[in-house]
Amino acid sequence: MGLIRIELENLRANPPSKTAVWPALERFLADMDAGRSGFFHLPARSSWERELAAIKPALAHRIPELDTFLHLGIGGSSLGAETIVRALGASRAPAFHFFNNIDPDWILHTLERVSPHKALLYVVTKSGGTMETLAQFAFLRQWLESRLGKERARNHVVFCTDPSKGDLRALALEWKIPTFEIPPSLGGRFSALSAVGLFPALVAGIDGARLLKGASDYRKRFLEQVEKSEIPDALSLASMLVDHARKNGRAMTVLMPYSQRLKTLSAWFTQLWAESLGKNGHGLTPIAATGATDQHSILQLLRDGPQDKTVGFVEVKGFDQTFDIQWHDPTLPAFDLLNGVTMNQLMDAELGATRQVLTNGARPHFTIVLPRLSAHTLGQTLYFLELLTALTGYLLEIDPFGQPGVEEGKILTKQRIVAAKRKLN
Amino acid sequence: MGLIRIELENLRANPPSKTAVWPALERFLADMDAGRSGFFHLPARSSWERELAAIKPALAHRIPELDTFLHLGIGGSSLGAETIVRALGASRAPAFHFFNNIDPDWILHTLERVSPHKALLYVVTKSGGTMETLAQFAFLRQWLESRLGKERARNHVVFCTDPSKGDLRALALEWKIPTFEIPPSLGGRFSALSAVGLFPALVAGIDGARLLKGASDYRKRFLEQVEKSEIPDALSLASMLVDHARKNGRAMTVLMPYSQRLKTLSAWFTQLWAESLGKNGHGLTPIAATGATDQHSILQLLRDGPQDKTVGFVEVKGFDQTFDIQWHDPTLPAFDLLNGVTMNQLMDAELGATRQVLTNGARPHFTIVLPRLSAHTLGQTLYFLELLTALTGYLLEIDPFGQPGVEEGKILTKQRIVAAKRKLN
Repeated sequence: MGLIRIELENLRANPPSKTAVWPALERFLADMDAGRSGFFHLPARSSWERELAAIKPALAHRIPELDTFLHLGIGGSSLGAETIVRALGASRAPAFHFFNNIDPDWILHTLERVSPHKALLYVVTKSGGTMETLAQFAFLRQWLESRLGKERARNHVVFCTDPSKGDLRALALEWKIPTFEIPPSLGGRFSALSAVGLFPALVAGIDGARLLKGASDYRKRFLEQVEKSEIPDALSLASMLVDHARKNGRAMTVLMPYSQRLKTLSAWFTQLWAESLGKNGHGLTPIAATGATDQHSILQLLRDGPQDKTVGFVEVKGFDQTFDIQWHDPTLPAFDLLNGVTMNQLMDAELGATRQVLTNGARPHFTIVLPRLSAHTLGQTLYFLELLTALTGYLLEIDPFGQPGVEEGKILTKQRIVAAKRKLN
Repeated sequence: MGLIRIELENLRANPPSKTAVWPALERFLADMDAGRSGFFHLPARSSWERELAAIKPALAHRIPELDTFLHLGIGGSSLGAETIVRALGASRAPAFHFFNNIDPDWILHTLERVSPHKALLYVVTKSGGTMETLAQFAFLRQWLESRLGKERARNHVVFCTDPSKGDLRALALEWKIPTFEIPPSLGGRFSALSAVGLFPALVAGIDGARLLKGASDYRKRFLEQVEKSEIPDALSLASMLVDHARKNGRAMTVLMPYSQRLKTLSAWFTQLWAESLGKNGHGLTPIAATGATDQHSILQLLRDGPQDKTVGFVEVKGFDQTFDIQWHDPTLPAFDLLNGVTMNQLMDAELGATRQVLTNGARPHFTIVLPRLSAHTLGQTLYFLELLTALTGYLLEIDPFGQPGVEEGKILTKQRIVAAKRKLN
């Protein structure tokens, strides 16, 4: 069973002292026990498997030739699911489209290649009232109904929302739509390992139980460290990031997985980090990157730009498949250099070189090392980054679980919609 | 003919004075006339159309059922092309895959759905020796040859590289591969409007001449302003961004198009901005975002986090298509609010609200307004952002056209490859 490992480099200039960080840890643990956020105990919840197993035969019956999964959701309702599916989805799984925006050209463009007979809509909104998601669903309902008829259209829809509140829950009851619950204490951005992400995982042929086992194993490790009065890795890293920000002005946190299949992990982390920590004039700014690609993009800035960032890598020790580069020809020196090397070795060489460049420039960085990319290691990684985010909030004395700043925008948007409608009438 | 427009808001706290900015402008113009970078005069080059027109019949002859375009390139060799294709590609065009990373699992996973008989490989490396791109090509050459045979495989390949140097040029001569030139003075990140982007555009059914016309029209406007001794818009914005960075510590530049089809534009801009400006301990850090999606991600941080950013929006005034949201039901208030509104209006309301939120919080922002999203407006936008980047470099007294910091990483990577090969033997 491969466990992920956290490696620190140049970060240790600011090693955390136990007296400084323990009070934050204790507040965090007390809040978790009081149910302040559902994420911490989520992996211990045992009912997901049952709920997910129950839906499988119903789905196969309703849509026998399922070939397209349309995921409707935005922000935390979308990114966790997309991270899991892009990282681990089987190549023979249905095509996944994540409708996380309201651009009508893009939606229509995407639908041109989709057959409603073979499509499943998964509508995810925690509150049941997210405007973008409801607007999309209103349109896709018409799209389905005009092609399949009213009754059959409903067979192509699954919801995920609050257990009792909101428009989507009301509709679920009226239309008898299979509907997963998002526990009220679980913020959207912490919901990847709930039905929000687990149902798409199921359809993509990913073992949800292994994802949860990964999270649960990481949680166990965290609690063991607490039990032994050691500073847990997530808290240790959180403390160093906070110190580098406060004392050295390193206000940005780069996350750069060296794996194309983990590209969405950076986007998910960006949302988690920004929305959890950007409060009261504080907050660290997340920067999403992907290796080796972005060595040809932001590396120049990471090496020679201002000393205002810490960089986190995600390293996948072994890819599932690899291949040799074969091109023996001394007259073509660039090809010849690569002759006999595997893609795995090339990726290793590039990550090693990038880390060396940062170390040489006294630029702090850390690495999350995954023995392989699997449901088990991804579950650990998601949970570790959630812990890291929450604990960073507690150290900054920011509540990581609210998002008060989003409200103003929602109210202003509604006012503008009402005004637009008034103009129409 | 719709021209793009630059709107500034809250940025004017630091209006540029002509005496402060004119010397940088004059150095820039002198360097452009001396051929320091090919991007400035690129739209005036008239040979693209001829070169591109010449390849069309050859292609149709070589691959009569072309359904997949495999773009091999990394950094600037990839992002400009992807930006254009994602923004404007016809829905009936071939499927485009941008192989901009070396993750072997991802490459093999993608190829599972591709038929080599119907695929075209476009291999782009300015130097002709980019390791990642050559490694991919070495593998894809085998993939093609094992399925099509050696001779026919070569019919499925087009190159884009230096006119005379490098391994790819040597191979082009040996194998007689159709090959576009990247002018030596044109840095990869400034090459979107050369054959690097124009050939994929052609295959995607996009009017390359209109892209160039857009760039050329914007260039004309810029030179007219210079002629009249007005501060050109790009310089005016550059100066305000630099001032906000120097005087107010706003070291980050967010680019947030409100259009899903412009999502890659942010990634392209990130590469352009980071690699051009991150030098000598200076540089502004780019943050890629997409509206309305990232209102549910970084908006919380933009509103309530530290005052360390300026935000740029890209607004598309009218989408090509739109649709009404129809859901009249007073018992479902969230749906009912949206009833009768178009997706266009919803997008407008969201962008307007987000701008208002920033204005209310005295957070500076600007908007690039596109009357519509078309080849003509995208050409203008790319050119404007290239001008903005170059001029920001001149104001910061940084050479925006080199990338010295990337070299160290390349050397270290090569050393590690040589070491890995030694171990094998």
